Amino acid sequence: MARVDVLKVATAGPNDLGSLKVLARAGYTAADILAVVSKTEGNGCVNDFSRTLADATWADVVSADAITVFSGGTEGVLSPHVNLIVRAEHHPAAGRPGAAVAATGSTRPIAAHELGRAPQMDLVRATTEALVARLGLRPDEVHLALVKCPLLTSADVAACRASGNEPVTTDTIASMGRSRAAAALGVALALGECTESEAGAALAMEGADVYSSVASASSGAELANCKIMVLGSSPRVHGTLRAAHQVMRDAIDAEAVTSLLAQVRAEGGVVVQAFAKAGPDPRGQIRGWRHTMLTDSDISATRHARAAVGGLLAGLLGDPAVYVSGGAEYQGPPGGGSLTVMYRIHE
Amino acid sequence: MARVDVLKVATAGPNDLGSLKVLARAGYTAADILAVVSKTEGNGCVNDFSRTLADATWADVVSADAITVFSGGTEGVLSPHVNLIVRAEHHPAAGRPGAAVAATGSTRPIAAHELGRAPQMDLVRATTEALVARLGLRPDEVHLALVKCPLLTSADVAACRASGNEPVTTDTIASMGRSRAAAALGVALALGECTESEAGAALAMEGADVYSSVASASSGAELANCKIMVLGSSPRVHGTLRAAHQVMRDAIDAEAVTSLLAQVRAEGGVVVQAFAKAGPDPRGQIRGWRHTMLTDSDISATRHARAAVGGLLAGLLGDPAVYVSGGAEYQGPPGGGSLTVMYRIHE
Amino acid sequence: MARVDVLKVATAGPNDLGSLKVLARAGYTAADILAVVSKTEGNGCVNDFSRTLADATWADVVSADAITVFSGGTEGVLSPHVNLIVRAEHHPAAGRPGAAVAATGSTRPIAAHELGRAPQMDLVRATTEALVARLGLRPDEVHLALVKCPLLTSADVAACRASGNEPVTTDTIASMGRSRAAAALGVALALGECTESEAGAALAMEGADVYSSVASASSGAELANCKIMVLGSSPRVHGTLRAAHQVMRDAIDAEAVTSLLAQVRAEGGVVVQAFAKAGPDPRGQIRGWRHTMLTDSDISATRHARAAVGGLLAGLLGDPAVYVSGGAEYQGPPGGGSLTVMYRIHE
Amino acid sequence: MARVDVLKVATAGPNDLGSLKVLARAGYTAADILAVVSKTEGNGCVNDFSRTLADATWADVVSADAITVFSGGTEGVLSPHVNLIVRAEHHPAAGRPGAAVAATGSTRPIAAHELGRAPQMDLVRATTEALVARLGLRPDEVHLALVKCPLLTSADVAACRASGNEPVTTDTIASMGRSRAAAALGVALALGECTESEAGAALAMEGADVYSSVASASSGAELANCKIMVLGSSPRVHGTLRAAHQVMRDAIDAEAVTSLLAQVRAEGGVVVQAFAKAGPDPRGQIRGWRHTMLTDSDISATRHARAAVGGLLAGLLGDPAVYVSGGAEYQGPPGGGSLTVMYRIHE
Repeated sequence: MARVDVLKVATAGPNDLGSLKVLARAGYTAADILAVVSKTEGNGCVNDFSRTLADATWADVVSADAITVFSGGTEGVLSPHVNLIVRAEHHPAAGRPGAAVAATGSTRPIAAHELGRAPQMDLVRATTEALVARLGLRPDEVHLALVKCPLLTSADVAACRASGNEPVTTDTIASMGRSRAAAALGVALALGECTESEAGAALAMEGADVYSSVASASSGAELANCKIMVLGSSPRVHGTLRAAHQVMRDAIDAEAVTSLLAQVRAEGGVVVQAFAKAGPDPRGQIRGWRHTMLTDSDISATRHARAAVGGLLAGLLGDPAVYVSGGAEYQGPPGGGSLTVMYRIHE
Repeated sequence: MARVDVLKVATAGPNDLGSLKVLARAGYTAADILAVVSKTEGNGCVNDFSRTLADATWADVVSADAITVFSGGTEGVLSPHVNLIVRAEHHPAAGRPGAAVAATGSTRPIAAHELGRAPQMDLVRATTEALVARLGLRPDEVHLALVKCPLLTSADVAACRASGNEPVTTDTIASMGRSRAAAALGVALALGECTESEAGAALAMEGADVYSSVASASSGAELANCKIMVLGSSPRVHGTLRAAHQVMRDAIDAEAVTSLLAQVRAEGGVVVQAFAKAGPDPRGQIRGWRHTMLTDSDISATRHARAAVGGLLAGLLGDPAVYVSGGAEYQGPPGGGSLTVMYRIHE
Repeated sequence: MARVDVLKVATAGPNDLGSLKVLARAGYTAADILAVVSKTEGNGCVNDFSRTLADATWADVVSADAITVFSGGTEGVLSPHVNLIVRAEHHPAAGRPGAAVAATGSTRPIAAHELGRAPQMDLVRATTEALVARLGLRPDEVHLALVKCPLLTSADVAACRASGNEPVTTDTIASMGRSRAAAALGVALALGECTESEAGAALAMEGADVYSSVASASSGAELANCKIMVLGSSPRVHGTLRAAHQVMRDAIDAEAVTSLLAQVRAEGGVVVQAFAKAGPDPRGQIRGWRHTMLTDSDISATRHARAAVGGLLAGLLGDPAVYVSGGAEYQGPPGGGSLTVMYRIHE
Repeated sequence: MARVDVLKVATAGPNDLGSLKVLARAGYTAADILAVVSKTEGNGCVNDFSRTLADATWADVVSADAITVFSGGTEGVLSPHVNLIVRAEHHPAAGRPGAAVAATGSTRPIAAHELGRAPQMDLVRATTEALVARLGLRPDEVHLALVKCPLLTSADVAACRASGNEPVTTDTIASMGRSRAAAALGVALALGECTESEAGAALAMEGADVYSSVASASSGAELANCKIMVLGSSPRVHGTLRAAHQVMRDAIDAEAVTSLLAQVRAEGGVVVQAFAKAGPDPRGQIRGWRHTMLTDSDISATRHARAAVGGLLAGLLGDPAVYVSGGAEYQGPPGGGSLTVMYRIHE
C-alpha cells in the first residue's frame, strides 16, 4: 500500500553512509529504502563529481528497484544531507487517511539525440503515469514527481554526431536545462497539466505558458536514463506523514512558502522536509528589478538561484537542510518553481 | 540639522547615472547628495571592477564632502541599484521627532601595513566619533555606521614589503576581511560596544566575542582611505523618514527581520530600504547543520553569504533591491550580521 | 601613408593611463593614437567591467577616429597591458619597404536581432574592405584584422523580444561567440578567404570548414557597433616595424609559433608583440586527448583557452605581456587560432 | 631491484578503470601496480570530489602497499589521464644501467594541528629517507619525490579547535599550501637540499630561499596521511625507461623544458611522461610583468598556474596528457617548479 516514511540525515561528504545508522535506529534496513534523495555539495552543473561519488557510494547499498537522486549544489546556507524515503507498509499505521505514499521507477536509457526531445518527454510521461496508477492516486493527490535525468557531455555530443545525429544542443550546460524541460513536460502530460500540443511547443523552447506544479527534475552525468519518484497523499492509506505542495510564482515568493506552512500548521503538522525548485527568471527581472544571474559568467545561473531560494526557505523553516534543486524549466512558472513539503502530524 | 531623504533607483550598470533624473524629479540636485550607497554587480571581491567603474562614474558628480560606497556582489536575486542619501534640511519638515539624520566623513589614507591593524581601527573610531558628535546622537540612536575601506592587492603587498613592512596578510582576499574587521571594531569602540582590550583581541582574530550591531563595512580596491556614513534617528529632528536596526544572529535569522518589520508596521511605516551584512559562519555550521561556504574553492564565501541572506531579505520584503553586503566580521555575531531599515511614516 | 609604430606598456589596472607618459617620451601625442589594443584583467566574458572601465578611461583621451579594443582575460601568466598603435607617418622613415601600416574604422551600431547574423557579417565585411582599400593592400599583405564587437545582455534579449524580434541566442555568453563568428566571417569575406555561401553556412553554425587566418574578434558589452583595425605590410611604405602571421592549428601548436619566430629572426627582427586567438576545440579533444574546457561549469571555456595558449606563447617569447584573446570561432581552424607578430628590424 | 615501467592512459572520467585493459595488454596485473598517479578533472582545490571519486574507484583495485595520487585540475589543454607505475623487475631487462626505479610508502595519519608544521615535515622526511635508502640511491639520483598530502576542511578546523589545538590556518584553501610546503620541506631535508634551520624558517612561511628540485606535493581531502613515491635512476639497474629532472625558474621557463628535452634526445630517448609543478609567483610578477593570479577572486591561483604551465609543457611536448600539479611551495623557486620526465631509450 506504499506508505512511506522519511529520514533526513546530515552528511559529512558525498560518500558518507552514516545515515544507515539512523535508518537502523529507526527500525529499517537498507532493503526498505525506496529512494535516496540527497543534496550533494558539488557545483550542481555538468562536472559535478559529488553526484557521481554519491552514486557510486550508494549503488550497492540500495535494492535494485530503489532509485537514487543526487542533486548537486548546496550554495549559500544549504546543508548537504540525505533524505531516505523508506517503505513503511509494515510499520504501525497510526494517523488518519491521506498518508504519504510513494513509488519509483526508471525509463530505458535516453540516447543522446533523444535528450531534450519528444522521446525523453514521452518516456518520462509513461513511467510517471504507471507510477501514479500503481499508487492509485488522482492527479491532484500527487505532490511531487521527482525526476533524475541525464545530460550531454562533450563526449556525448561527439558520439552523437559521429552516429549521424545532431543533439538538441552542443552546449553541455544548456543540455541540463533541455533534459529537465523534457522531464518536467513528461510529468505535466502524465498529470494532465497541459496538452500534447502545449508540451510540444514548450519542448521547442518556444515559451509556451505551461508547467507542472509538482515536477522537480535534476540533471546529472551520473546516469543515462530517467529515474522517477512519485509522491502523493492517498485517501486510502493511514499514516502520520503527509505531503502538500504549492507553487512559488517567483524566486522571492515568501507568500507561497508561508501559506503552505500555515496549511501544515492548521493540520497540527510539523515540517520534516521541503523540496523546492529554483531557477533564474529567463526575462532577467524579478518583480520589475533586474537580476544578474544570466549575465554572470563566473557563476552558473542555477547556483545563484539555489542560493537565493535556499536562503529564503531555510530562513522561513529555520532549517538549512532543505532540498533546493536548481533549474526549474516548466517546473513552475518562469522564474518560480514547485514546492513540496513532507510533514508529520501528531494525534 | 542633518535630516536626510533616501532615493532608491535601479541601475542598468555600474556606470548608470540615470538616478540623477529621479533625483531631479524629487526636487534635489547632485549637490544635495550626502552619500551614494550602491550595490554593483561585480564579484564583490578583490578584482571587482564594477566598483571601480561606479567610483569613476560618480567621482565628478558628487560634491567633495559627499562619500560614495560601492558594494560589489548582487548574487542570487539581488538587484543592482543605487541609494542616494540626500540632505533634506531645506525640504518641508512634516513628521514627528526621530527623523533620520546622517553625516559623512573620511579618514586619511590607510598605509598598507596599517590595514587590518590598530591604526586603521583607531582612524575609523575617531572619524565615527566625530560624526556621531556632529549629529548630536547618543550611541543607541545610531542605526547604521557604513564604512567603505581599502584592501591589499598583490602590488600593495609587494610595495609594503619593499618598504620594509610586513602586511597583516599576504592573501588578497583575506585582506578584505581584515580591513572590514578593523573598521567594524573602530565603530564598536566609537559607540561603546566593546572595550579597547576586547577590540585589540578581536583585531588579532583571536575570536573575541564582540561586535558592533550597526557597523556595515565593505572593502574595495577603489579607495585608499576609509569613508564613513553615520545614520541615526534624532529626537531633535522632525521628519517622515526614520531608521531602526536589529541584529541577525545567523544567516537564516528570519525572526530578526520579521520583528524589525513588525516594529516598522507598528509605527505605521513602510520600508524604503534595508541594509544587511552577511558572512559565512566561521564555525562551518548553521544551527548544527554543516554549510559549505568555506570549503567551496569555486565561489568566495562572501558571495554565498550575500546570495542566501539576499534571498531571505528580498523574500520577506518582497523586494530584490536590498543592500546586502558580504563579509560580516564583527558586524554582528559570527555568522550573523547587522540589519538596518529606513522607512517612511505617513501621518 | 599609414605607417604605424607600436608601444607596449604594462598597466596597473584597467583605468591606468600611465602609458601616455611612455607615449610622450617616444615623441608622440594622444592625437597620434590610431588604436588602443589592450588586455584587461576581467573575466573576458559577459560581465567583464574591466573592459567598460578601460573604455570609459580612454574615451576622452583618443581622437574621434581612433578605436579602442579592450580584450578581457589575463588568465595564467598573461599580464595586463596596453598596446598603443600610433600613426608614424611623420616620424623618420628608416628601414626597407614592407613596413607595418594600419587603418581603423567602425560600423554603424548592430541591432540586437542583427547580432551574429548576416547584417553584422556584412557590415564588418564592408568596413574591412574599405580599410584594406584605403591602405592599398593586397589580401595577402594583411596580417591582422582586429574587430571589437558587441554581445547580448539579458536586457538586450528582453528589448529585442519586446520589439518583436528573436535574437540569434538568448544565452548571453553564447552571444559572444555568435558575434565573434559573424565578425570573423565578415573579415574572411573581405579578404576572399571564403565564398558567400560558405560564410552563410558557417554563420548558421553548421560547421563549415572555413576561417580567416588574420581575423581576431573580441566581444564586449561596452560597445554597440563593431570597431575594426586592419594591419598589414605595405610594399610601398618604408619602416623598421613589420608584421607577419601564421595560423595555429590547435591550442598546443608550438610549431606555428616557432616557425613564425624563425621567420622573424631570419629577417633580423625582434618581436615587439604577438596577437593570438585561443578557443576550446569544439570536438572536445586535442590531438586525440580529451580536454575539459567545455564541461567545466565553473570556468568559461574561453578563460581556459586563453590561459593555455597564453602560457605557451609567453614561454616561447619569454614575455607574459602578449595579447591572447579568447573565443576563436572562424578565426583559425576549430581549436586553433590566428597568430600575428609585430617585430622590429634593425639595419 | 625496483625497476619500474609506466603506462599512460586517457580516462573518460575519474571513475574510469579502462587503463586496466591497457595494463593487461602490456603483460601486467593490478598486483604489479606500485603507484597510480593521475590527473583528475575537478578544481584541484578543497572541494574537489573528482579526487575522492577516483580514490574510491581505485581503492580495492591496487594492492595494500601501492599508493594512489590523484591530482585535481586539468585546466586549459590538460587532459585527464592515469599514469600506472608498475613493478617491472620480472620483465625482460634490456637497456643500460641507470634505469628508472621507484618505491612507495606512507606516513601515519597527520593530525589536524600537525598539518603544515614540523610533525608533518618530519614524517615526510623520514618516509622519504627510508624509500631512498630502500632504493639504494644517492640524492642526486632521485628525480621525483611525489607526495600526496592532506588538507583542512571546515570540519577539520572545528574538530581541531574543539580538541584544544589551533590549526596552522583556518583558511581551507590556504591549508593546502601549508600541507604542500611541509611535505616539500620534508623531501628537501631527506635529500639534503636544505638545513633543518632553513626548513624551519621556510615552514613558518618566512620566505627562506630554499626548495627541493624534485619534490611534487599535492593536497587533497581524500586522505589523512602522506603517501610518497620516490623515483630515481639506479646505476645498478638495467632498463630502457629512465628519468631526469630540471627546475623551472618561473612559469614561462621554456628553456628549462627544452634543455631537458635536449638531454633526452641526446640519449636517443623519447619522452613518455612529464611531471611539473606550477604555482603563482608570490611576488605578483613574472619577469617584471604583473600577473593577476593572486588577485582573481573567481579562479584559484593554482588553477591559473596549472593552465599556463600546462599550455607551455603540452605545446613543447606536443602532448596535452602531461601531469601538471598546482601549488609549488618549496617545490622549486618561488613562481617556478620542479620538472621531471620519464623517457624511453631504444638500443
